[in-house]
Amino acid sequence: MEFIAGVNIGGTEIKVGKFSDGKLLSTKVLKTDISNYGSNIMNDIFMAIDELSEQDTLIGIGIGVPGPVTNGFVLGAQNIGWEKVDLTKKVTSRYPHVKVAILNDANAATFGELAYGSAKGYHSVVMLTLGTGVGGGIVMNDQLLEGASGSAGEVGHIRVKEDNPRHCTCGLFGCLEQYASATGVVKTAYELRKEKDTRLNKHNLTCKEVFDFAQAGDEISQMVVEQMTDYLASGCATIANIINPEVIILGGGVSKAGEYLRAKVASKFQKLCFYAVKDTKFILATLGNDAGIYGAMHAARML
Amino acid sequence: MEFIAGVNIGGTEIKVGKFSDGKLLSTKVLKTDISNYGSNIMNDIFMAIDELSEQDTLIGIGIGVPGPVTNGFVLGAQNIGWEKVDLTKKVTSRYPHVKVAILNDANAATFGELAYGSAKGYHSVVMLTLGTGVGGGIVMNDQLLEGASGSAGEVGHIRVKEDNPRHCTCGLFGCLEQYASATGVVKTAYELRKEKDTRLNKHNLTCKEVFDFAQAGDEISQMVVEQMTDYLASGCATIANIINPEVIILGGGVSKAGEYLRAKVASKFQKLCFYAVKDTKFILATLGNDAGIYGAMHAARML
Repeated sequence: MEFIAGVNIGGTEIKVGKFSDGKLLSTKVLKTDISNYGSNIMNDIFMAIDELSEQDTLIGIGIGVPGPVTNGFVLGAQNIGWEKVDLTKKVTSRYPHVKVAILNDANAATFGELAYGSAKGYHSVVMLTLGTGVGGGIVMNDQLLEGASGSAGEVGHIRVKEDNPRHCTCGLFGCLEQYASATGVVKTAYELRKEKDTRLNKHNLTCKEVFDFAQAGDEISQMVVEQMTDYLASGCATIANIINPEVIILGGGVSKAGEYLRAKVASKFQKLCFYAVKDTKFILATLGNDAGIYGAMHAARML
Repeated sequence: MEFIAGVNIGGTEIKVGKFSDGKLLSTKVLKTDISNYGSNIMNDIFMAIDELSEQDTLIGIGIGVPGPVTNGFVLGAQNIGWEKVDLTKKVTSRYPHVKVAILNDANAATFGELAYGSAKGYHSVVMLTLGTGVGGGIVMNDQLLEGASGSAGEVGHIRVKEDNPRHCTCGLFGCLEQYASATGVVKTAYELRKEKDTRLNKHNLTCKEVFDFAQAGDEISQMVVEQMTDYLASGCATIANIINPEVIILGGGVSKAGEYLRAKVASKFQKLCFYAVKDTKFILATLGNDAGIYGAMHAARML
């Protein structure tokens, strides 16, 4: 049997999937060895692929990397200690007769949802991954938009707030990420709960709890969600005004708030977007943490 | 000799260019006949092409239309009275053996600057046309980004201002167009000149005068230009953060302010953009009103 390996390199773990005909057959999860500038990572991945291989024939490898990538060339991946590296060449020299696709991890996840997840059948999509930060990927006419320096889709750094802005780790202020990420939601909760009677007054508050409390009727939690969705809808309107995708996918941990979140963003978007892009649809991601390996596999499969 | 016709349909006039091997040989300018829902426009264009033709052989027609276009299909063009129309079919039935490209006018202008103007040699560009309004076009990896409903590149409706915003003709408020268009600059001048000693205190003030006065040292005019370039740079940062082009082209009448404008926007952009897109270049458009016919021709030539 012929198979393709879909790989996602994260800051703490690496996932390797074995796919045949687009179907995920088995996976292996490794710890990301960031020692020595991440120089063991690729060998660890090659070993995992060889183990998954068994009697089957490897015909393609797709790898999602946590950093900017253009044309198969990684421009750097700080979290795992990598500088610029021609990763396509590295993989090809180990597996000379195999199709190799290297892409950014958020782009891989977007590609995954497009080809095998919630956005199946669409051709132009933007995915927002709402997690610790806010990342994203763009596919237009079935083509990944990598950008001139591999940074297209960095939608977390759209400025959505001018006054009383929060400073962002990127050095800017008022970035969408500061309001629509899990971290941002908890920050807003800390601001709004002050001296008020609310279930938010607890230690180690999580973003999930804020959404749960809001749905259970806690008024201050609802205010937090309203503020978060205001900014998220505003960011989505900006994206749609510029590139006019068919659909915006909400993914990442925060998107587990599900239809409650999706419906609010979709409805607020209508009031903020340019009239010509009002048909933009909003959907929830469905592949969860597997989106990256599906997308990496898909990129290799399409070569 | 073989030639391609590049056409730009505007609200008041239509320009038809005769091109051979990418060179503009001659042009014809017609009045746009918007009577009867613009139903004479295409015949007027066909006649102009036939006249320009002489003994030469028409091998392609490219047409820029003032409205959203996807895959050669015009979704509507209010200014000239058009509803949805399959313009490719209309042109092909008149000239059956000719390559036909139909595209949005701002996209055509962007394509023109990319292939024959200031952005020659680049592959991923965004053009902003700063005129009565603010329009734009996007080309990524040499491909036009039309968007799901033909509205990609409508950068004039990015919200750049939250508080004390100006209402926009589109129904939204705080749109870039309200601050960075010629109209917007004059509006700002009227606001800032109140009861102050400035050369701006004259009737029928134009955007060009504001820029001229500013360069000649008029303090209030300089404040107007600073405000305009603040918002323009902010809009450009938002665009670059999302799609990461190699270069942003400033075009349209306002861009005649030249290097004075370009340098300000480029420098302010550096303080507002995400660090990964700091290499984005800023250049001035060079084809002026001919950008549209060049781009329409180029689109047909590439088929």
